[in-house]
Amino acid sequence: MTHVPPPLKRVIDVLSELPSIGPRQATRLAFYLVNQGKNTIDALASGIGALANIKTCSECFFIHQTPNPICGICSDPARNHAIIAIIEKETDLLSLEHTKKFNGRYCIIGEIPKNGVLEDAQKLRVEHLKSHIGKMHNGKAEELIFALNPTATGNFHASLLMREFAPFANRLSRLGRGLPTGGEIEFADDETLGSSLERRT
Amino acid sequence: MTHVPPPLKRVIDVLSELPSIGPRQATRLAFYLVNQGKNTIDALASGIGALANIKTCSECFFIHQTPNPICGICSDPARNHAIIAIIEKETDLLSLEHTKKFNGRYCIIGEIPKNGVLEDAQKLRVEHLKSHIGKMHNGKAEELIFALNPTATGNFHASLLMREFAPFANRLSRLGRGLPTGGEIEFADDETLGSSLERRT
Repeated sequence: MTHVPPPLKRVIDVLSELPSIGPRQATRLAFYLVNQGKNTIDALASGIGALANIKTCSECFFIHQTPNPICGICSDPARNHAIIAIIEKETDLLSLEHTKKFNGRYCIIGEIPKNGVLEDAQKLRVEHLKSHIGKMHNGKAEELIFALNPTATGNFHASLLMREFAPFANRLSRLGRGLPTGGEIEFADDETLGSSLERRT
Repeated sequence: MTHVPPPLKRVIDVLSELPSIGPRQATRLAFYLVNQGKNTIDALASGIGALANIKTCSECFFIHQTPNPICGICSDPARNHAIIAIIEKETDLLSLEHTKKFNGRYCIIGEIPKNGVLEDAQKLRVEHLKSHIGKMHNGKAEELIFALNPTATGNFHASLLMREFAPFANRLSRLGRGLPTGGEIEFADDETLGSSLERRT
């Protein structure tokens, strides 16, 4: 990378480290930005800078900008705070909210690492949830929904967590398994088709 | 996108408009950044902000940060300025430099649009090159290498440009057809790109 000015090189390096962006795409993006000129560059720079002021909810760990320590969902009196969905990431919360079929609250524990071992920060969130249930719901939530990704590691950790949280809720559940709506039987994998048979309604 | 604070929404919108980044990836990236915390966010924001100070060379249109109006390549006395490679984009320059087999200079005319019609800014660059050859090389460069992507539109424009520049150079060439037709210069390996330079026709 001779001929590349140091500031550009730095941006390429930082962009390369973002998830799902490789060095080639980072280089193309950086050159694209330079060519967009000062206005676009400044807009993106100040936009990204403003992200530093976004807070994390002390209950569910979702991001928010309310003046309180907890987010809009956790402080909404119209929601049932005794039904808690344990999810991996923020975008999963957005997806579940988008269905408009859930009126409980969430607890984001972070993506399950590929090696299957929870990080310390994730274990802390799990412990936080337990002590929260102890304080707010006399030790028993109404329902805990373990909405982890239906992958091998996700299923494994959902099982572990369900055992661990058994004393903490009246009901433990997972998201239903079956054919995706709009999908075709012909293209479903054996695993999916099998569980759609087992859980036929 | 309820529940997404406005600053985050803005970053998602700006990121979505970058080439090859869709709304889903933009959302994931924005949440990733928020979770990285203040230091990473500030580093990226100030890095991107610094891109606004990068200049464009008035001769070859590559980016640079020298105190002069022209870049390090265009001002390098060890290079043959009468051999000019006409290329589409900055990353093509980096790829060609990386082969260490070219000692001329460049003229970046920008990516040939998918519809095959050059934009006004691109036509200006072509005219600029002609007047530059008129001033610096008495109207005749030693060689012009039309190193556009070997795609249908790239080949078409290379042919047009070769006819247009016929009076402006003693030799007109294209990169050798070691390049796979339909491929892009950016993705060629050094060996292929190097021999396509050596065997230019």
